[in-house]
Amino acid sequence: MAGFPHKKEFPVSRVRRYLEPGPIVLVSSRWRGRSNIMTLGWHTILEFSPSLVGLMISGGNHSFDMIRSSGECVINLPTTALTDTVVGIGNTTGARIDKFAEFGLTAEQATRVDAPAIRECHAAFECRLHEDALVDRYNFFIFEVVAAHAAPEPEYPETLHYTGDGVFMVAGEIVDRRALFRPEMLD
Amino acid sequence: MAGFPHKKEFPVSRVRRYLEPGPIVLVSSRWRGRSNIMTLGWHTILEFSPSLVGLMISGGNHSFDMIRSSGECVINLPTTALTDTVVGIGNTTGARIDKFAEFGLTAEQATRVDAPAIRECHAAFECRLHEDALVDRYNFFIFEVVAAHAAPEPEYPETLHYTGDGVFMVAGEIVDRRALFRPEMLD
Repeated sequence: MAGFPHKKEFPVSRVRRYLEPGPIVLVSSRWRGRSNIMTLGWHTILEFSPSLVGLMISGGNHSFDMIRSSGECVINLPTTALTDTVVGIGNTTGARIDKFAEFGLTAEQATRVDAPAIRECHAAFECRLHEDALVDRYNFFIFEVVAAHAAPEPEYPETLHYTGDGVFMVAGEIVDRRALFRPEMLD
Repeated sequence: MAGFPHKKEFPVSRVRRYLEPGPIVLVSSRWRGRSNIMTLGWHTILEFSPSLVGLMISGGNHSFDMIRSSGECVINLPTTALTDTVVGIGNTTGARIDKFAEFGLTAEQATRVDAPAIRECHAAFECRLHEDALVDRYNFFIFEVVAAHAAPEPEYPETLHYTGDGVFMVAGEIVDRRALFRPEMLD
């Protein structure tokens, strides 16, 4: 890819802008000096303020213990420039390889957590564990986004949306219906 | 729209196919003889089998009590044929209007729950409440999908993905990367 996305600070209360459309994300973590990355499609926004996001992280992932022990992660937003990287990360395990090195990604120091951000991604949402009541039964973590950075351009990045079975849908046309909304329903 | 989508039975273990890409959905409910519909974008797949889906249903919605009391709902998948309907449903309340009548939608009898499906939608996922441990604190419901129906065509429907602020992203290009996946990672 030609250069890195130039991320700027972004309001944590507005991360729904990027996550509500349902993209595949890359979740990075760090624990005891080692870093890892996993591909994840099972997430949802839960609240604007505090900025809460729910992530289902399967217990079979090497990242699971790293994220639970550190209580932190960064949710990184990849675009079509990283399609094969997203697949590669999802098909390998951090138990055997250093994913940053293996996939030529750049670990970027985050601002509020120790887990690294991924420079090549369009946006990075730094998260601290907020609630683990459903982790044992459902592997469902609730994180608070404590800092957010996003590239202002392109305004609507070509995010990847996983349908299963090796097939992705790419973010398409933008449809503006602001005129039909009650004012209090708009951001 | 020209005719209704012709839905056929679909395996409940494969609903990630439609929900993981992150579309806006219409959630229909019934309680004490009254039906309602709400627009919802905050959801995630949680498990293949049993087929579990998490929904964040804000307590301010008229549907909240209907869904909690009945322990049921149907998650309906609208496409661009229903864009203005999706907006209209999200900007009105079932406390004052009958949304099926107001928006010209057809209530279709579901197979395993009393809540109605919406005939005009591409797919319908019939749900029973599975876990309410996080409802009081986060309005987060975990449902089991007990029956699923989806139109076989089009294979990749033009779903709507909400970015906030009155703007939707429409499902775009399909990218097949099956060849790069380990076989056990495919559905």
